[in-house]
Parts: sequence; structure tokens; C-alpha cells
Amino acid sequence: MPRILVLNGNTTQAITDRIAAAARAAAPADAEIEGMTAPYGLPLIVTRADWLLSGPPILAALAARRGAYDAAVIAVFGDPALDAAKLLLDVPVVGISEAAFHAAAMLGRRFGIVSFTAALRPMFEDCLDHHGLRSRCAGFRMGPPDASYPAELGPPEQAQLLALVRASIEQDGAEAVILAGGPLAGLAPLLQPQVPVPLVDGTAAAVRLAAALAGLPRPARPQAPRVLTGYGPEVTSLYRG
Amino acid sequence: MPRILVLNGNTTQAITDRIAAAARAAAPADAEIEGMTAPYGLPLIVTRADWLLSGPPILAALAARRGAYDAAVIAVFGDPALDAAKLLLDVPVVGISEAAFHAAAMLGRRFGIVSFTAALRPMFEDCLDHHGLRSRCAGFRMGPPDASYPAELGPPEQAQLLALVRASIEQDGAEAVILAGGPLAGLAPLLQPQVPVPLVDGTAAAVRLAAALAGLPRPARPQAPRVLTGYGPEVTSLYRG
Amino acid sequence: MPRILVLNGNTTQAITDRIAAAARAAAPADAEIEGMTAPYGLPLIVTRADWLLSGPPILAALAARRGAYDAAVIAVFGDPALDAAKLLLDVPVVGISEAAFHAAAMLGRRFGIVSFTAALRPMFEDCLDHHGLRSRCAGFRMGPPDASYPAELGPPEQAQLLALVRASIEQDGAEAVILAGGPLAGLAPLLQPQVPVPLVDGTAAAVRLAAALAGLPRPARPQAPRVLTGYGPEVTSLYRG
Amino acid sequence: MPRILVLNGNTTQAITDRIAAAARAAAPADAEIEGMTAPYGLPLIVTRADWLLSGPPILAALAARRGAYDAAVIAVFGDPALDAAKLLLDVPVVGISEAAFHAAAMLGRRFGIVSFTAALRPMFEDCLDHHGLRSRCAGFRMGPPDASYPAELGPPEQAQLLALVRASIEQDGAEAVILAGGPLAGLAPLLQPQVPVPLVDGTAAAVRLAAALAGLPRPARPQAPRVLTGYGPEVTSLYRG
Amino acid sequence: MPRILVLNGNTTQAITDRIAAAARAAAPADAEIEGMTAPYGLPLIVTRADWLLSGPPILAALAARRGAYDAAVIAVFGDPALDAAKLLLDVPVVGISEAAFHAAAMLGRRFGIVSFTAALRPMFEDCLDHHGLRSRCAGFRMGPPDASYPAELGPPEQAQLLALVRASIEQDGAEAVILAGGPLAGLAPLLQPQVPVPLVDGTAAAVRLAAALAGLPRPARPQAPRVLTGYGPEVTSLYRG
Amino acid sequence: MPRILVLNGNTTQAITDRIAAAARAAAPADAEIEGMTAPYGLPLIVTRADWLLSGPPILAALAARRGAYDAAVIAVFGDPALDAAKLLLDVPVVGISEAAFHAAAMLGRRFGIVSFTAALRPMFEDCLDHHGLRSRCAGFRMGPPDASYPAELGPPEQAQLLALVRASIEQDGAEAVILAGGPLAGLAPLLQPQVPVPLVDGTAAAVRLAAALAGLPRPARPQAPRVLTGYGPEVTSLYRG
Repeated sequence: MPRILVLNGNTTQAITDRIAAAARAAAPADAEIEGMTAPYGLPLIVTRADWLLSGPPILAALAARRGAYDAAVIAVFGDPALDAAKLLLDVPVVGISEAAFHAAAMLGRRFGIVSFTAALRPMFEDCLDHHGLRSRCAGFRMGPPDASYPAELGPPEQAQLLALVRASIEQDGAEAVILAGGPLAGLAPLLQPQVPVPLVDGTAAAVRLAAALAGLPRPARPQAPRVLTGYGPEVTSLYRG
Repeated sequence: MPRILVLNGNTTQAITDRIAAAARAAAPADAEIEGMTAPYGLPLIVTRADWLLSGPPILAALAARRGAYDAAVIAVFGDPALDAAKLLLDVPVVGISEAAFHAAAMLGRRFGIVSFTAALRPMFEDCLDHHGLRSRCAGFRMGPPDASYPAELGPPEQAQLLALVRASIEQDGAEAVILAGGPLAGLAPLLQPQVPVPLVDGTAAAVRLAAALAGLPRPARPQAPRVLTGYGPEVTSLYRG
Repeated sequence: MPRILVLNGNTTQAITDRIAAAARAAAPADAEIEGMTAPYGLPLIVTRADWLLSGPPILAALAARRGAYDAAVIAVFGDPALDAAKLLLDVPVVGISEAAFHAAAMLGRRFGIVSFTAALRPMFEDCLDHHGLRSRCAGFRMGPPDASYPAELGPPEQAQLLALVRASIEQDGAEAVILAGGPLAGLAPLLQPQVPVPLVDGTAAAVRLAAALAGLPRPARPQAPRVLTGYGPEVTSLYRG
Repeated sequence: MPRILVLNGNTTQAITDRIAAAARAAAPADAEIEGMTAPYGLPLIVTRADWLLSGPPILAALAARRGAYDAAVIAVFGDPALDAAKLLLDVPVVGISEAAFHAAAMLGRRFGIVSFTAALRPMFEDCLDHHGLRSRCAGFRMGPPDASYPAELGPPEQAQLLALVRASIEQDGAEAVILAGGPLAGLAPLLQPQVPVPLVDGTAAAVRLAAALAGLPRPARPQAPRVLTGYGPEVTSLYRG
Repeated sequence: MPRILVLNGNTTQAITDRIAAAARAAAPADAEIEGMTAPYGLPLIVTRADWLLSGPPILAALAARRGAYDAAVIAVFGDPALDAAKLLLDVPVVGISEAAFHAAAMLGRRFGIVSFTAALRPMFEDCLDHHGLRSRCAGFRMGPPDASYPAELGPPEQAQLLALVRASIEQDGAEAVILAGGPLAGLAPLLQPQVPVPLVDGTAAAVRLAAALAGLPRPARPQAPRVLTGYGPEVTSLYRG
Repeated sequence: MPRILVLNGNTTQAITDRIAAAARAAAPADAEIEGMTAPYGLPLIVTRADWLLSGPPILAALAARRGAYDAAVIAVFGDPALDAAKLLLDVPVVGISEAAFHAAAMLGRRFGIVSFTAALRPMFEDCLDHHGLRSRCAGFRMGPPDASYPAELGPPEQAQLLALVRASIEQDGAEAVILAGGPLAGLAPLLQPQVPVPLVDGTAAAVRLAAALAGLPRPARPQAPRVLTGYGPEVTSLYRG
């Protein structure tokens, strides 16, 4: 009965609700999902600077609930704080971009990445390079650079996304397609019936991979206590050893 | 309650038994494991030619049990028949090398690969390149090229492996270590207490990742029937549409 | 006077005839070409699963004529059975994709790949990665994903291909262009007068490179006999040592 | 007369003093160097988690002195906060690993990386990959994984480092060698007379490259104000637009 | 007060004048710029063969002024003679493509390359690969393959270039853009006000990076005298030890 | 009856004789080999600067014999002038490093590179990268950096080379081994009987591949005449169109 903490790095509760719902829909039958919102930072994480500044509140949240989960998911495309969290915590931590890439790579030889706006492309490229899966990526298909993020994706937006998905499959040869970015969360099961290759949702993939990793043996990693100043008690506790 | 078929591509029943035991020990609580042995081919798969010739019997076995499993694991390092099986079957199929690489990549920034004998290195390199995770690999640490595969790994062999694992961590900077190759199956939980980074066993990783992928949405992929001659009824059935 | 076996992995005799003619047209003056059709398998090899299943009949054919040729060409784009054949036979074996890539790389700094339909792109990408020549490829230019393979390429199809070749040269900077896929075999000499860079045909390249390699010294590689079950006498003979 | 802020991300003043001295020694004649210590965080940054947590105090320091410098150097191997700082500030910001890699690449075809202890290798590899200069690196030569960082490098340590430098040149083919890591700062000019290829010090390289970039035209990048909560006034000011 | 020799590898004095002006505009306040024209070779270097044949006159020019400069810039896109010059001279030598790539990589995570005509793309690709910065490049945006090089870039050409720059930023995600090729020299400062990311000019970047490297310690590299025949006194002097 | 010009870029006739003998021993039965020595330049080409300066005399020699050969081999490890020659001549030109890499890649999945002295490693790495076959290379095994090149390789040198070859096979997993560098020319057939994988000699491979490429169709490439000054009549003739 793995307990999985799904942490929204944005400070917006509505996003947390949507992510938690997607996580619950995808979780193994015996898993328990706890949704959580970053205690401070940015309402919507977009840039590399946002990635950095959302890091400490993500660690604070992970530290605050330590012991209450068997695996954690950082539910922000771009995986802020992921490397640090993997190091500081004694349970598996999975990022939603990381999970999307690895799951897609196991579902097809090359995966496409589809998103609403080309403005996010540099960040997605960074992410792909960081996880080393560039050679498994068939390419990006994204909406116009100035597309605004609609709160709700109605039929016209869905039709536009489907066209991008099809271009990814037919022009780029994608054998699995990642729907990337917050507003697309939860859309994969909806669109899947119209698409002949697996559609991968980062949150769904991350929850299932986190549960998978939680069952593998792990080393005890007692850490020597170290001095850290200027942070609140939760983050500081991670350096107490 | 995912049903997972764990298929030994070698024709040796004793190997199937060992693999099935390792799979059961690692499986999610609610999963059912069925071990199966390839109906023909080679007692011990070693070379690239073996990979090819073990392919049709692996497909035959997968076809014979179609409908009786929700995900399958091909339990041969080198992942023979994996690409074909992913294409022909309507459930996820995971290879043990593929699983070891992806799991290790989520458990540490760079993983080492440790095995008994350097004679397998070319095959392992092929495998790593095929899955595109070369840049996540910290390097290989392997025993002498002429090492014979002992049936049982006693304390001296275990000590030798531990030394290779330590070199991988300390010299190469590995943050997770894969124990690769048949004779090392089941060893990871035994050695883990003496090792400060995660030790990854391919079978254990594959069973858990297969269960993870079985829960994600998949497209219906009705295939047009095609002519295939010269194969037995099981393999031929995979082309019947 | 090298004797070169040109093996069509498809079971369609008409394809064998076309390939053998192209091979004879390109062969060194003193070479002898023998065309051969795979004894079983698929009329037209298209997918990765086809690659695997065409492997054993290709090996069977190579084994059946052992001793009667000094080098062999596997004339299927995608090079099925190639790695196994290189290992099991004591003469050079060359695949037509392999040959096209290496020849093109020696004829221009970057080569383009042109084909009739984008549906084959994933397979061609696999092939390119397997041979490690990705960085020498200027890109793909392919017809629509749903293009059907015409039996004969009339003037309209040739004009369409020429347009793709020109885009490859002018937009992608290709300095040699590979015409890839069965229906394009034999077309290179026809179109060459209208194209300012070398046009590479896989079969022609393979025959010439196979003849080239046949003249280089090779090790004696006596193999220990090994058990292989479930295959016919030709394939089994390859494991008899 | 470029004013260059050299920011020590560690909270240890003694390290700042050493770095500032090295920076002054290497700076262009007309440059002004200001050394600065991170206001909070870690006395000695070592791990990836440290990189993240040293990020906000580095940004705070950069924000506090905004307007008082024409270019900034982040003087921590690993370049914490670098991507964010490049985005948020209107002057060039250069990291010392980044500078070492780029300078070394311009001084020799392949550069070696020498450091005191193999324990830092994973971090250095991350860094190298992040900047995309892997193919220019001839390899790592590092002391034992358990080496402790001496405060002062006496003749025995210098002799040991020289041996590593020579192995890098003679065995790995390095044509420039980076001395990496805090305790080696300032050592390059001392050891250079005994070494036949350029020895690169990150701080020296960064100061000179920062001065170089400060003279190139830059876009005005007015940023829209955005909400950021939970940070002190300096960091928050960077999001005020 | 670094003295920087800026060497035009083309034999056309008008190009030298334009380059020297751009160099002076970008140079550090205390630097002295000397422009110089290759003594023989080609009026306009375009192809790889041109690169080779412009090499000896570039070396001759560098040798002729030896001792009169502290750093040199080879001002030809493609960096002819660069590797040889780095080896033979005892001061830093920087190429303008090399400088553009390294500077752009420090100014943005991925840089685009914009030029007048796609005909130069193969040469630019070679260059990018030679310097190992492929993964930092967001892509090429170039005019038509048959564009002729205008002597002067009027408003229509500038508008066309701006459109390419914008496509590079918005479609490819470039965070810095290199204006590549002779006719674009000096254009960056003009267009910068209309562009939201740094525009990089190779000559400007090279002059500043050359000045930067001139201040770093260098080894004495006494070379053994070697026999070289068939060259004039300047080139021959470089082999005299 | 292909006529193949084998051009020694060194000015030493004894090397030409040895190379021509190796070329004749390996050539197809119907080929004619003409050995030729560079008219000026260096007695022994070793460095990157040597590569550049041996370029014009190599082009001069190729131009002088234009029309008298159907394919040319540039017999210097490092392939000086190769890119230019491919562009300027209307017959195939093959370099011996290029040929060794491509032939070895067709003879085994990964090839090792063995040479007398580690001093050449940087040059060999450049070469490997230039041809884009890095991922097919299993690694380098080379003698000490200060090894002097013996004129004749006696039994002790041969034993030392055999040990390097074995390390390449057993430790690095090489499935073909290139004997690289002048003094090793002609050694492959001698050592082959003691080695279980193909030993590749660059000259032998180049002659056979040049003959292979000579039989493939080529475009007419009429070149517009261009101005080139300062070179002798042979080189200049290559620019006359």
C-alpha cells in the first residue's frame, strides 16, 4: 500500500486539485495519493529562474511530510528540485518530465513532445538533455509562441492539439507522444481513443513509476549533519543528518 | 491485480525457476507472476546471433499465452525480440536490460554496470546504445574475459563482485549500480546492505516497471492481417490481425 | 573473381530479380553475382517485427549456400540478421543500409535520405542509429505517410523524388543522397544525370563494398559447437562449430 | 573600466578572500573587482543539493549590488544559480566551471580536468554535460575518493597534482588542463612553469571572460512584473519587473 | 594594452577594412587593433577547399608579424588554419566562428545561426561540429540557397534577416543569435535594438575573447626545429623551432 | 581495371615504397597501383600544423596526375587535404584513416585503435570525430608517449603490439582492430594469424574502398572558374573550372 506524495511546485491550489485528481485516476489500486501545494514561490512556474526559486519551497514541503509517504512526485514540468530531493530523501522521488520521458521510451522507440506553446520549448529541451534521452525524442510539435494558457481546454483547443499529435506521429515518426505542460494534464485518457500510439501524461506516468521504484531495495544512507543557515526549519532539518 | 508473464528466453528450466523467484520477491503485492521457458532455441543465450535465434521462440511463447497476462517481461539481458514484441502485442512488454537502465537512471544521475566477465561487454554496450542511455552510464566494471559462469555464487565470487561495485562507485562516480547477467540475478537484495547506492537487478526492475506501464492507457491497435510463412501456429497468429 | 551472394530477405521472386539486376549492373567486372530469395517469411518486409522474423530464413539461406560465395549482401533496407550473419559466417556480410550509409559518408560530408513514404522513417532512424552514423546524416526527405508503394515508378513519381532530392541538397545541405527502400532500387543511375551530388543506391553500394571487404585478411574463427534446438538443418548447421 | 562582482556562493569569508585575490591577479588592467560572500547557505558547497540551496542567496547577493557592476562571476565550481542569474540580470553573468570549460576549449583541442578527490567527479560530470562540452574533454584525473580538502596545498600535494596533470597530458592527450575545485584556486600560475600545456583556473578564466562579454551589445529586456512570495526583498526585487 | 592582430584570410582589402572597423568598435578600450590581409589565396573564401588553400597564406601573415601582437584573430567564418596557428604560435589565436559559438553559448542556453544563404550551411555545420558545440545550437535559419552576397545590406535585406532572426527565436527557441558570414559583419549593433536576445557578431566576439585569453598564463613551448620544404620564409620560420 | 593513385603526403620516398607495396598486395586483381610522393612539405607528418601544410603539396600531386587515375588514396593517417580533394576532383578520393574506420565498422560492431605511441592520440581522436564514427570505437591502446618510431618493427615491437591488440579485444571489447600509423603499415597480414578478430590496415582498406567507390555513378560537376593566387600551376589548375 504505497503512500505517494504528489507535490505541486506552483502555489496555486486549483492546479494541485487537478494534478491530484489525475494522480488518483492513474495510481495503482492499493496506493494512497496525497496532493500538496508548495508553501511559497510562484503561482505558475515557467522559466529557469522559476525552477530555481521553486526549489526550496518544494524541499520544505517534502521535508514537512517526511515519513508520511513512501515515494514522492514533483509535479512540475522541468523537474525543479529533483536532483536535490533524490539526494536528501530516503524514499524515491520522481519528476513528471523524467517520468514522461522514461515511460514514453519504454512504450515506443521514439517519442514526440506536444505542447500548447513554443515559448516553453527551451525549457523542455533543457529537461530532455538533463535526463539524457535526446536520442529517443522524435521532435517537438508546439502551438504558436504567443499562445496564452487557457484555464480550460475546450473542443477547439483539443482539435488543435490532436493536429499536433498527428503531425508528430506522421511527420516525425513518433511512436508515443507526451502531452507536456500543466494545462494538458488529465487530457491523455480523453484523447487516447482518437490516437493510434500511446499518449503519455507526466503525472500519471510519475505516479506509477514512483510506486514501482518504492518497491525496490534501497541503501540506508545515513548522512553526516551539516551546517545550513538562512532557511526555515523544514529545509534545515534535511541537513541535520 | 496485474498478471505478469516472465519469460525466460533460454531453454533451461532451472534459470526460469531462479528468475521467477526473483520476480515474485520483487512484484507488487497484488500482482500474479507466471514464469515460462522458451519452447526452443538455446540453453544459454550469449551472442548477438543467439539474440536473433531466441527471438521467434520468445514470440511463440508470448503468443501462446496471449490474453492470460496484462504485461510481459523478457528476462534475457540483451532484450531479444523486445522491439518486435512491443509492436505485435497489445500489452506492455519490458526487457530486463531496458528496465535496469531506466530504473537505475531514475535512482542516480549515472549508473555503473557490473558483471562477471568482460566477454559480455560488447553485448552490453549494444544494449545500452539501443536504449539510448549511454550518457547516463558511468562505465563498466567486469571480471576477467575468460571467467566461467559459476552455477552458484559463493562468498569469494560475492566478494569479487563487491570490489567491482565499489570501484564503480568510487572511481567512476556511479550513483546506482546494475548487476548484469543471469548468474547475478537475485543477488542485489543480498549485497545491498554492504553498498551505499542502489543496486539494480534487471528482473526486479522489469517486473515493477511492467506493472507500472500496465496501468497506463493504451491505444487499440487493430492490425491488418498479413501473410507470414514458415512459422508455427503461435507466431503466425501474431500476423493474423 | 569474387562470388557474391545477394540475398533478398523478402519471399517475393520479382523483387529478387530486380535486386539481382541492380547488383549485376554495379558489380566489379570480375565478380559473379548469385541472387537468392528467402525460403520463407514475408512477401514484403516493413516493420521491426518483420526484421526479426525474416532473420532465421535469411540465415538459413546463407547457410544453405555456404562455401559457394566469398561475400554476401543482405538486400533488405534495415539489415535484418546482419549482426548474426557477421558473427556466424567466415566471409564478409554487408547490409544494404549499412553500405549506403558508409558509401555516402565517403562521398560527401553529410548525406540525405530520400524515400517514398514517411511511414518508413522510424525504421530508417533505427538503422542509422544502429550503424552510428547519425552525425553524418543531413536529414530525411520523404513522401506522404500514406503513400502506397507503386510497382513501377513512372515519370510523375520520379519527378516527386527529384523534388525531394533537391530539397535535401538545397535545404538540408546534403552532399550525397541515398535513395532508400525497395521500389527505388535501380533508380539512382537513371536520375543521376539530373542531380549535382552522388545518388547512392544501397544494393549497388553493398555489392561493391562486399567485394572490397572480401579481399582483406580475416581471422580463422573456429567456433565451439553449441546446442540449438527447434530450427531446420541449415540454421542448425551454423551452430555445429 | 568594467566593474566585476565576484561572488563566493559559500558563506566562508576566507574563501572569498582567496578567490578575490585570484580574480584581481587575473583581471584586465582597467577592471575593478569586488569580492562578495553569499549572505546565507553553506560554508562549503559540495553536493547537488548544496547547488540548489546556495542558489537563492547567490541571487540575493547579485540583486543587492545590482547597478554596481557591469558583469558578475559566480565563483563556485558547479555554477549554482547561473541559469537563473543569466535570465534575471541585465549584465553578463559567468560561472567558473563554464568559464574554465570554454577557455580551455579555446586553448587546446581537448582539455583534461584535474582535481583533488574523485568524490567530486559526479558533480563535475553534470557540469560538463550541462555546458555541452563533453566531446572536448579528454578525461578526468582525480585523487582518491576519500581525500580530505587541505586548507593549504604544500609541496607534497602540489607534487601529487602535477602527477595527475602529467597523466592527463600524456595518457589522455589533454592539450589544456583545468585545475578544478576550491582548494586549487590560485595554483595555476604557480604550477604553470612546470607544465607544457596551459593550466586553466576557473576564477581567472571567468573574470576575463566576464570582462570580454561586458563589452558586447545586449538587448534591453524589460520584464513584466510577476508575483513571487516567501523570499526576502532582494530576490523579490528581481521579479518586480 | 593588448595588441591584437585581426587577419582577413580573404585577399580583398575592402573586407579587411570592414572587419578592422568592426574589431575596433568592439575592442577593449586599451587594446590596439591591427588589420591585415592575407598575402595570397582567394578573394572570397567559400568552400572547404578554400579553407585549406587559405591556410598557408594565413600562417605566413601570422609569422610575418610575429612579436608585434599579443593575440590574433582569424577573421574568416570556418576558422581556416586555426588549429595549426594555435599550435605554432606562442600567443592565443581565436577564430571568428569559434568565438561566436563560445560567446553565444555563454549568453544563452541555445543559440541560433542566421545567414544570408543556405549554400553555406554545410560549411557552418562542419565548423559547429569541429568546435563540439552542436548540442548548444538551436538550429539554422538561412536565406535561399542561390542568394547572391550583396556588397551592401540595404533595408530590404535587413528586414529579411530580422525575419530569420525572429524565426530562430520563436520557432527554434534560440536565446542568442549568431549573424554568420562576411556580409553580415558589423550588422549586430544595428539590429540589436529590434531583437530581444543577444545578437552575436563573430569579429566582435573574437576580438574580446582574444583579449581575454591574452591575459591568462601560458606555457613556454620551445619547439624542436623541423624540416619543412617548399614554403616561403615566413611559414618556414614557424618550423625553425 | 581501375587505376588507383596512392599518394604519400610525406616527402620520404622510403615510406612511399612501403605504402605502395602494401597497396599492391591488397589491391583487386585488375587494379593498377601508382605510388607517388608529395613534391614538398614534411619528411614525416605528425601534428595538426603538418596536416595543413601537407595539404597544398598533396593537391598539387593529385592535380599533376589528373586523368591518369580512377580513384586516389591519401596515405597519411589524419587524412590531410581529404575534404578539399573530394571537392576539387572528379574521381573518388579516400583517406587511410577514413577507410580504416569505415572498413573496421563493417567488420565488427566496435573497433579498437592500436598504435605505437600515445603521443599521436590527440590527432587520432580528431580524425575519429571528423569522420563521425566515435560511437563505433571501443577505445585506444597505445604505447608510451615518448616511444620513438623504429624504422623496422622487430619481434619485440611486434610482441608489444600484440599485447595492445589483445587488451583492446579482451578489455575494451573490440571486434576489429585498426593498426594505426605509418610504421605499422603492412603489419596486419603478418599478425593476423595470431589474432581472433580482423586486423585493419588503413592503406589496404583504402585501396579496396577506393576501387569500390570508383565503380559507382558520379555526377558531372562542372565548376565555375575562380581566382586563386600564389600557388603553383598544378594547384591553380584545380580552380580553373
